Amino acid sequence: MENSDKKTITRRLSSAAGHLKGIERMVEDDSYCIDIIRQIQAVQAALGKVSAMLLDNHLHTCVTTAIQGDDPLERERMLQEVTSVFEMSSKI
Amino acid sequence: MENSDKKTITRRLSSAAGHLKGIERMVEDDSYCIDIIRQIQAVQAALGKVSAMLLDNHLHTCVTTAIQGDDPLERERMLQEVTSVFEMSSKI
Amino acid sequence: MENSDKKTITRRLSSAAGHLKGIERMVEDDSYCIDIIRQIQAVQAALGKVSAMLLDNHLHTCVTTAIQGDDPLERERMLQEVTSVFEMSSKI
Amino acid sequence: MENSDKKTITRRLSSAAGHLKGIERMVEDDSYCIDIIRQIQAVQAALGKVSAMLLDNHLHTCVTTAIQGDDPLERERMLQEVTSVFEMSSKI
Repeated sequence: MENSDKKTITRRLSSAAGHLKGIERMVEDDSYCIDIIRQIQAVQAALGKVSAMLLDNHLHTCVTTAIQGDDPLERERMLQEVTSVFEMSSKI
Repeated sequence: MENSDKKTITRRLSSAAGHLKGIERMVEDDSYCIDIIRQIQAVQAALGKVSAMLLDNHLHTCVTTAIQGDDPLERERMLQEVTSVFEMSSKI
Repeated sequence: MENSDKKTITRRLSSAAGHLKGIERMVEDDSYCIDIIRQIQAVQAALGKVSAMLLDNHLHTCVTTAIQGDDPLERERMLQEVTSVFEMSSKI
Repeated sequence: MENSDKKTITRRLSSAAGHLKGIERMVEDDSYCIDIIRQIQAVQAALGKVSAMLLDNHLHTCVTTAIQGDDPLERERMLQEVTSVFEMSSKI
């Protein structure tokens, strides 16, 4: 992964972890449940964007290399993995 | 798309449409709301599987052709589309 | 359910079923896979809205009656069902 | 919220935050993108369960109190909020 992408992604993950720490304090302080749920949903959505960035990167690197390469099994594995994370993404 | 895949996919879409017709009757017959919601969720999940089958097919055909081809813009467009449907799939 | 809600919901379900029939034809006509996936995602999103309308109705009728009623088991069952469709909705 | 529920929920949020920290290191260590995406999806699913626990708690406390209470506006607000987080949960 390019360094700039890596930085963006780690920064977003770190920010999501910080967000969760804040939500933990909301629970301890007896904040209103619906507000807490909305904050959790915001973190889930932010993580969805990070996954999309990772997939974009993966398609441009490993998947492209595999498809241009000579190993049909490797190519097949790559494509199946993409379908599998796609399928999972609709389940969470 | 291969004919066998096409058949499987149209059959599943047709079955989902039939399922919705049944759910329509449940609403008309005043069925219990939670039961209706669960049936709708079953249709949504079934449609998610059809999308995964279509994506799998797309990766093995158009995307593979584009990545092995000579047009960098076409390749880029293909990869962005995959990321875009992935991102959308986590939003529904 | 009030008749106007019932009509809105059956009309939306019918429209989603019609949309799926159109998608079936797209598959038969070899439409572009990504376009088909996007149409399927649109149907899934439309069904999510129908579920939200049904839940809204359910909360205002059965759940309200149960919570104002004298049967603690019935009340508990109602609340658990709401949580259960909520949990499921994040899995599809 | 009861203290035992509060503890369970803060512990799960804390564990999700720790999980994200681990995922951050995976990115720094150039782990395989698909593995990272799967870990992120696991965190999203874990957060979905926390939201369901919070909703369950909310229904048994605030919503029950409002529905048994005398303020129709407050009751309406509560029910709309539940529908709203339900609708959002299918969008992430």
